[in-house]
Amino acid sequence: MNVAILGAGAMGKVLSGTIEEQQDMSLAGIIEPRNGEKLHDIEGQVDAVIDFSNPNNLEMLMDYCIAKSCPAVIATTGFTLEQQQMIVDMAQQVPVVFAANFSLGITVMKRVLEEITPILEDTFDIEVIEKHHNKKLDSPSGTAKMLVGALNGQGTYEEVHGREGNRKRGKEIGIHAVRGGTIAGEHDVIFAGDDEILEIKHTAGSKKIFAAGAVKAAAFTQTAGPGLYNMEDVLFGDK
Amino acid sequence: MNVAILGAGAMGKVLSGTIEEQQDMSLAGIIEPRNGEKLHDIEGQVDAVIDFSNPNNLEMLMDYCIAKSCPAVIATTGFTLEQQQMIVDMAQQVPVVFAANFSLGITVMKRVLEEITPILEDTFDIEVIEKHHNKKLDSPSGTAKMLVGALNGQGTYEEVHGREGNRKRGKEIGIHAVRGGTIAGEHDVIFAGDDEILEIKHTAGSKKIFAAGAVKAAAFTQTAGPGLYNMEDVLFGDK
Amino acid sequence: MNVAILGAGAMGKVLSGTIEEQQDMSLAGIIEPRNGEKLHDIEGQVDAVIDFSNPNNLEMLMDYCIAKSCPAVIATTGFTLEQQQMIVDMAQQVPVVFAANFSLGITVMKRVLEEITPILEDTFDIEVIEKHHNKKLDSPSGTAKMLVGALNGQGTYEEVHGREGNRKRGKEIGIHAVRGGTIAGEHDVIFAGDDEILEIKHTAGSKKIFAAGAVKAAAFTQTAGPGLYNMEDVLFGDK
Amino acid sequence: MNVAILGAGAMGKVLSGTIEEQQDMSLAGIIEPRNGEKLHDIEGQVDAVIDFSNPNNLEMLMDYCIAKSCPAVIATTGFTLEQQQMIVDMAQQVPVVFAANFSLGITVMKRVLEEITPILEDTFDIEVIEKHHNKKLDSPSGTAKMLVGALNGQGTYEEVHGREGNRKRGKEIGIHAVRGGTIAGEHDVIFAGDDEILEIKHTAGSKKIFAAGAVKAAAFTQTAGPGLYNMEDVLFGDK
Repeated sequence: MNVAILGAGAMGKVLSGTIEEQQDMSLAGIIEPRNGEKLHDIEGQVDAVIDFSNPNNLEMLMDYCIAKSCPAVIATTGFTLEQQQMIVDMAQQVPVVFAANFSLGITVMKRVLEEITPILEDTFDIEVIEKHHNKKLDSPSGTAKMLVGALNGQGTYEEVHGREGNRKRGKEIGIHAVRGGTIAGEHDVIFAGDDEILEIKHTAGSKKIFAAGAVKAAAFTQTAGPGLYNMEDVLFGDK
Repeated sequence: MNVAILGAGAMGKVLSGTIEEQQDMSLAGIIEPRNGEKLHDIEGQVDAVIDFSNPNNLEMLMDYCIAKSCPAVIATTGFTLEQQQMIVDMAQQVPVVFAANFSLGITVMKRVLEEITPILEDTFDIEVIEKHHNKKLDSPSGTAKMLVGALNGQGTYEEVHGREGNRKRGKEIGIHAVRGGTIAGEHDVIFAGDDEILEIKHTAGSKKIFAAGAVKAAAFTQTAGPGLYNMEDVLFGDK
Repeated sequence: MNVAILGAGAMGKVLSGTIEEQQDMSLAGIIEPRNGEKLHDIEGQVDAVIDFSNPNNLEMLMDYCIAKSCPAVIATTGFTLEQQQMIVDMAQQVPVVFAANFSLGITVMKRVLEEITPILEDTFDIEVIEKHHNKKLDSPSGTAKMLVGALNGQGTYEEVHGREGNRKRGKEIGIHAVRGGTIAGEHDVIFAGDDEILEIKHTAGSKKIFAAGAVKAAAFTQTAGPGLYNMEDVLFGDK
Repeated sequence: MNVAILGAGAMGKVLSGTIEEQQDMSLAGIIEPRNGEKLHDIEGQVDAVIDFSNPNNLEMLMDYCIAKSCPAVIATTGFTLEQQQMIVDMAQQVPVVFAANFSLGITVMKRVLEEITPILEDTFDIEVIEKHHNKKLDSPSGTAKMLVGALNGQGTYEEVHGREGNRKRGKEIGIHAVRGGTIAGEHDVIFAGDDEILEIKHTAGSKKIFAAGAVKAAAFTQTAGPGLYNMEDVLFGDK
């Protein structure tokens, strides 16, 4: 299949490398709107567009995909509510995969947490440790927040960020943001029970993992009907 | 509910402590057949029998449970094929939970591995590290073998026990048995992919975890019909 | 050698078991002052007294050890300044080992941290994660504070307990107190640098480790002259 | 100071980037002998040469450094005994740092292991786990062998590579080579004792760590007299 990339920034470049490594995929083109390039400039067949650019290009993506009946994989974040509605509308006409984190490992981890938390939470305490490099400003990480969302779906736990002083552990999830060196990203969820601990831990090495997930999503769209999908659909085939 | 224990060995004693800690459970009696004691000696109501003894007592367990319409939780191992058939027969008349490992954490871990391995195995390499005390003779542990069974259900991977010398990694699962000190038991399954790693790790602190699982199983039998169940049924309610 | 124990509480009992496991050591007696028992009640030779009781018994310990020229191992904590001076005085007449944590592993860990921190701290960020059971009230643990003292001897780092919100990592040591289940005690010091991480991690399984250290200390006193020693002296023979 | 690089391969390129990031260091030139380039071609002052090439260029390095009284940092491996003697001779006239692994973290780890092993080995069992990518052919890694050398200096332990079947743990060090995905390199030394574990673990993220160590070594040579040094001398200042 032929895949076009929208956005020639850092992620676009990583993605073009990943596409070239695939046996059954080739690069139809990489379009940088900041240089005045457009998706319609691409000659030849395009079987899916992967968008790693920014929300400003959503209209161009939508016009192109609907005109060409071409599936879209949207890995851009920061859309307004109105733009999110545009994505929903677009998905009525073509397959659209839209997700906040395209890593395979994190998608699998989130799914596992959603499944096992209801079974374990009565008798196990939940704590989350995430580690990132010393330049990262926000704590906890967006991915940690997403995972805590999966753990605390009912909102029954207080979310505690570090501990100091004297206090009994309550109905809470402890969240610990470690910062140091050049750590690319680690997320460790700990279920600590009576004399046993179950841990699910993801370690990222680079941004390549988001490109690998986007490529899986592009392949998924080839056999999917119109509709809005996320990475769990891509990996677990729920729809 | 009132629970009787068959077998007053180390596990039987741990179990009686666990039962006494439960709010809605009390100990109907602890029977040691080696001292000539019998289940029929117990006076009063018995709502379930938990067997942590040895295969020799299966007939006594079966006779008692069928006569009294009493559910059984069988945590004993080492049955002959004929005895296993007896358990199957018994389960046609009363609820029977029968499993090799009653730990909640390991049961959940096995279930998770069965679910995620098909999704990850094409792009992630699988390795298993297990750690036990320096007195343990068998490598890998029985639990590690059970987990590798869940990872390698189709038998498509060669199982490699340690590595030395020059050889390219093939279609294999590496299994590493660490032995040292008094480590109670650790099982770590590593999915290593392109720039990301997903790890599922269980750490046991003591034998109490098997007692806790058996107690959950006993509670499960109170609402189950006759049938043969394992710990996945108890935790995930598959039947 | 013959060792007497002062204090028949939980630690005293663990210690008596540890002494009985030693080939070249036997138990001269275990004295519980709350029952009116005294060290002078012990008949026969005493080669060292190990005190796992409370500060109230210091005078009895001091009188006995000086009268009998008997070395002392003091594993009790919570002494007043005046009592600490008594210990210093006593050590002029007999060998005294006095420490806050008798675990071999923690003593070695502290020593290693003191040695490597000056080499690594310019180019590595330091973070500490400690894990304990969900009943523990104080955060961080006393042992974590002791280790942070070894890392931050000059007081040049701010000590940060957890992180939340937007802030750049400064000249700081992040300290993270994980609480859950029945975790006996874990202390993990992370040096995170440019594309490399060095970690020193101690995991405790039970209180037996403090007994093992006290026994080593008692053996050490047999060849030491009068003086005040800590566990680093016992293990590394600095004096 | 001005640093010349001998060898413009992958490591040479990483090193030139690292040198440019230093405040008090600049790149005097990068010489690739395969293209016919020579150290003597460099114009201007050279304060140290770092060699990341191959043993064939040793003579050129030696001639240049002796002629110019210029210190050398040799990060090349695979020298013959005769060539090693040349390095010893050269070090009588100029400062030479020569080591098998230039990573700061591994150098510190090796030093720590040499120090603590004699204290722990009587009561703790030692096991080593190393993890690398699935393309690595040799097991265990060269660095693991070096660390095991530090642990087993007296050769009193059998070195066991993985375990399978029934066997009691003897006087041995277990070594476990995990291979999977793109893991850059992890070395974990485990001291497992009675109810406590002490672990020293190094995680590498990229080859940049060897460049950082070579740069430290180059700086070290500026205040050192003629002599043969290793990375422990550079970091710990033993000479």
